[in-house]
Amino acid sequence: MQVAGKSYRTIWLKQEDPTIVCIIDQRQLPHAFVIEELHDVTSVVTAIKDMHVRGAGLIGAAAGYGMYLAALQSKHELSFEDKIKEAAYLLANARPTAVNPQWAATRQLTAILAASTINEKINIARVTAEAIANEDAAYCKSIGEHGVKIIETIADRKNGEAVNILTHCNAGWLAFTDYGSATAPIYEAHNNGIPVHVWVDETRPRNQGAGLTAWELLNHGVPHTVIADNAGGHLMQHGMVDMVITGADRVTRAGDAANKIGTYLKALAANDNNIPFYVALPSSTFDWQIKDGLNEISIEERDATEVKYMSGLCDGVIKTVLVTPLLSPAANYGFDVTPARLITGLITERGICAASEAGITELYPEQK
Amino acid sequence: MQVAGKSYRTIWLKQEDPTIVCIIDQRQLPHAFVIEELHDVTSVVTAIKDMHVRGAGLIGAAAGYGMYLAALQSKHELSFEDKIKEAAYLLANARPTAVNPQWAATRQLTAILAASTINEKINIARVTAEAIANEDAAYCKSIGEHGVKIIETIADRKNGEAVNILTHCNAGWLAFTDYGSATAPIYEAHNNGIPVHVWVDETRPRNQGAGLTAWELLNHGVPHTVIADNAGGHLMQHGMVDMVITGADRVTRAGDAANKIGTYLKALAANDNNIPFYVALPSSTFDWQIKDGLNEISIEERDATEVKYMSGLCDGVIKTVLVTPLLSPAANYGFDVTPARLITGLITERGICAASEAGITELYPEQK
Repeated sequence: MQVAGKSYRTIWLKQEDPTIVCIIDQRQLPHAFVIEELHDVTSVVTAIKDMHVRGAGLIGAAAGYGMYLAALQSKHELSFEDKIKEAAYLLANARPTAVNPQWAATRQLTAILAASTINEKINIARVTAEAIANEDAAYCKSIGEHGVKIIETIADRKNGEAVNILTHCNAGWLAFTDYGSATAPIYEAHNNGIPVHVWVDETRPRNQGAGLTAWELLNHGVPHTVIADNAGGHLMQHGMVDMVITGADRVTRAGDAANKIGTYLKALAANDNNIPFYVALPSSTFDWQIKDGLNEISIEERDATEVKYMSGLCDGVIKTVLVTPLLSPAANYGFDVTPARLITGLITERGICAASEAGITELYPEQK
Repeated sequence: MQVAGKSYRTIWLKQEDPTIVCIIDQRQLPHAFVIEELHDVTSVVTAIKDMHVRGAGLIGAAAGYGMYLAALQSKHELSFEDKIKEAAYLLANARPTAVNPQWAATRQLTAILAASTINEKINIARVTAEAIANEDAAYCKSIGEHGVKIIETIADRKNGEAVNILTHCNAGWLAFTDYGSATAPIYEAHNNGIPVHVWVDETRPRNQGAGLTAWELLNHGVPHTVIADNAGGHLMQHGMVDMVITGADRVTRAGDAANKIGTYLKALAANDNNIPFYVALPSSTFDWQIKDGLNEISIEERDATEVKYMSGLCDGVIKTVLVTPLLSPAANYGFDVTPARLITGLITERGICAASEAGITELYPEQK
């Protein structure tokens, strides 16, 4: 992804000093583009918890780099293995809903424990962190190449009119290391000259749509319109949406998809109006251990202040305003689960499949 | 309704000078309680258009009072009738979706034109304005008395646990002259000692839930929790909502209900989870001329700035912050239509009926 003409990923090792992990502080977007340097695993855990980085793929990659920093930090510790295991636990549990940090931390733990010397352990941790980040980008690129076929098919019957795609939250470049999951087919279509227009759900309470997806699309020159989360149903009732693509934070082997709160409502509306509803994800987002998303995925509850207050630009600085009565309580559920029955298909790095155990394991036979 | 121990309606003639109409400037809530005085019909039209007053019942009452001010202002005009007709046109069309202003302006026009002398015309305009406001309050009170029976039935099987009611937007006291439509059964239940808890959708982009409904419920001591508009589906999936009650801005004779954008999404979720979904309305909200809400109700499009910017309290003053990239476009549809098939019942001043032509005309046989 290009930002002001320069190519970026969302997380990388500092070129001048590869013991430092660099991220884009997404809390400042779309108003300021700030690069933050992380020096230790505690800062990585905080960056995940407090959402300097967010999005299933990116917090997975961050957990990978966090394990590398943990290995570096613990170099001279007698209890190296305990420290590494503790880091894996903290990173895997920094946020509860997405499966990726757990997956990345476990992969790192296995690799680090298998290496023999401390130097080899540190080396494999770095190699694995880079591999996780690279695979994430490569998987997203593949998702784009598979998903664009759906957009092409719709474009064929629109006679040059733009294909209207609704997306919720940010499953874009900023949620992964590059390309994005839900946005990858959109970028691919746009880059191939297929006219697309994106309805961007603002995605309260944290506005990842209004703040991040809109910023990405604007940077990349993709036509888009920001809407309140309430608006999608009306647009679908009136033929103004051709398809929905969202990302996911955890998908069960039966195809139930946990994603940003509000996704389920859009899936219901798509279903009620016969509009295809796709979920795009790299295989790192599958949780192969569970089937029933509604009962088996734990849903993060975040602080009520995220609902009661909103941040944005005022007189050139980011300010936070209170939108409720000071004394009214608020609740803040981070995700909901869209049952597989409402999902037209899953777009993965290996291709598109039905949101069902049969469909998924046809693409991933090793998980049968 | 009580505000700081004093009884208020949402619109009234100033006691010391009944040629002045007083309103609560709802743009300042929940942060400041400001009474605004309106001296002429132009100010009333502006107050409706710019949402100093809002809500189907209240903008109907405001149109009624606006006609009285128009009659007063035109007292010495040779073209009195033309002026009155022009005022009726402006008031009826100040906002397109709710039917109440049109209904109130037409009722006033008929009454004023039928009176003989100018003084009688002014007098009947005042009497009619007061009657519209009083009827609105009386109808809402009846809606509460009918609707509370549904809450009582649910309370009976909850063994003392609070009945969880979700509402969208503000169909409260502030949307009418008193009591509210959707909130009337809630206030009635609370006043009768039935434990209730209200999930308050914040209702972007203008936050009528977070700002107005929460403020009302807090003032009245009704337990409530503000949630993002995205959250309701998740709560319903997990048994945390016992019923939904919303208001309406226009209901067709077949029972399709236009209400604040996002209502349709909550109706879909209620339907998917077998949760009763009620629409509360006084009969002034019926549009007897139309059946098909999706095709026959015009949906207001408001300014994109309402989506791109948010207002709230910061350092003791109301500030407005930009939440999207400055250059991203936004769209702002004010309402959506919930098809009758998703509505469990309509709660009206005459009782509860099915959302169908047969159900409605059983309660309103004069409209058969």
